[in-house]
Amino acid sequence: MLKDMGLKEFINQTASKEPVPGGGSIAALSGLLGAALAEMVANLTIGKKNYLEVEDEIKEIQSKFETLRFEFLDMIDEDAESFDLVMQAFKMPKETDEDKLVRTQKIQEGLKIAALSPLNIARKSFEMIDICEVVVKKGNKNAVTDGMVAAMMARTSVLSAILNVRINLSSIKDEGFVEEITEEIDRMEKEIFVKEERILKSVEF
Amino acid sequence: MLKDMGLKEFINQTASKEPVPGGGSIAALSGLLGAALAEMVANLTIGKKNYLEVEDEIKEIQSKFETLRFEFLDMIDEDAESFDLVMQAFKMPKETDEDKLVRTQKIQEGLKIAALSPLNIARKSFEMIDICEVVVKKGNKNAVTDGMVAAMMARTSVLSAILNVRINLSSIKDEGFVEEITEEIDRMEKEIFVKEERILKSVEF
Repeated sequence: MLKDMGLKEFINQTASKEPVPGGGSIAALSGLLGAALAEMVANLTIGKKNYLEVEDEIKEIQSKFETLRFEFLDMIDEDAESFDLVMQAFKMPKETDEDKLVRTQKIQEGLKIAALSPLNIARKSFEMIDICEVVVKKGNKNAVTDGMVAAMMARTSVLSAILNVRINLSSIKDEGFVEEITEEIDRMEKEIFVKEERILKSVEF
Repeated sequence: MLKDMGLKEFINQTASKEPVPGGGSIAALSGLLGAALAEMVANLTIGKKNYLEVEDEIKEIQSKFETLRFEFLDMIDEDAESFDLVMQAFKMPKETDEDKLVRTQKIQEGLKIAALSPLNIARKSFEMIDICEVVVKKGNKNAVTDGMVAAMMARTSVLSAILNVRINLSSIKDEGFVEEITEEIDRMEKEIFVKEERILKSVEF
């Protein structure tokens, strides 16, 4: 599993010709790094006397980041597996008409899973940027830049995941499916720019 | 060393109260992930008959990404070490006037190193986004989204590193030093938004 690799091993495999980990897994890892960094800010806030007023809120957020961290970790491999599914379907026999029909069906099914996997990453990171904003605004001021970096990692995760949704949608023939998801990702894409900009502009140096 | 950790171990330590790895190391890792992903696109282009015309150019770029990959890997730890240097200086004795003088000097020296370390990350990622643009434009079309994700990771690396430069500059008393670096990071910050937007808009889905 990719998630069990050493950092260097993961990087080396990314750089290699091997198609996985690709952009989808990196989108999940970007979300994961953001979650971990924002969780650090929460951990540096909890128990500090200057932040007693927000302690309950930050504790709740810390546990959300922790949950997201485990989810993103699994999504690194889920994305790679869904990519593999499509690759396997493409390798199916296409001798007879029935072969072709089954193969096309399997490819279409695989593409849907391969679109839903980064969509799940995009949704999680989109949801996460709002709690990054809370740690930037209310968390330990000494770690404010870490919260801001977390927000940028969330933004890049959303946009990267969306690209991977789009590339799969472009080959999917189920128009209803494509339309519904396109609507959702168009909205997320538009909003994530606004959200990140608001967070970055909320802190003065 | 952070770079020798397993992926999970690195993430767990990021999420913990431990101040390192912090935003600076994550900025280096963001650049590293971008370099690895863009190198994959280069590797998926080299040797393909449809891309013979650009093969020499892509080979040169592949080797640049490889070099960047090793540099970013080292910068993860460099940033953590420079942070540690400042922390150590803050812990120095401040009983006598001489103590105080030496301590202040050491803090100021440490802060300069702690500002230059993310500045180096920002410069590398800033330089990298231009070759990400080349792989997006000329590399294997099947991996175009991976090149775009790499560009986004470079952008987030630049902006995250710059935040870490600014936080250190804000405590540095050497005005000439602060002014010179501020000018450089202001320019990079402005330009990186333009560069990333141009790359993202250059591909139609």
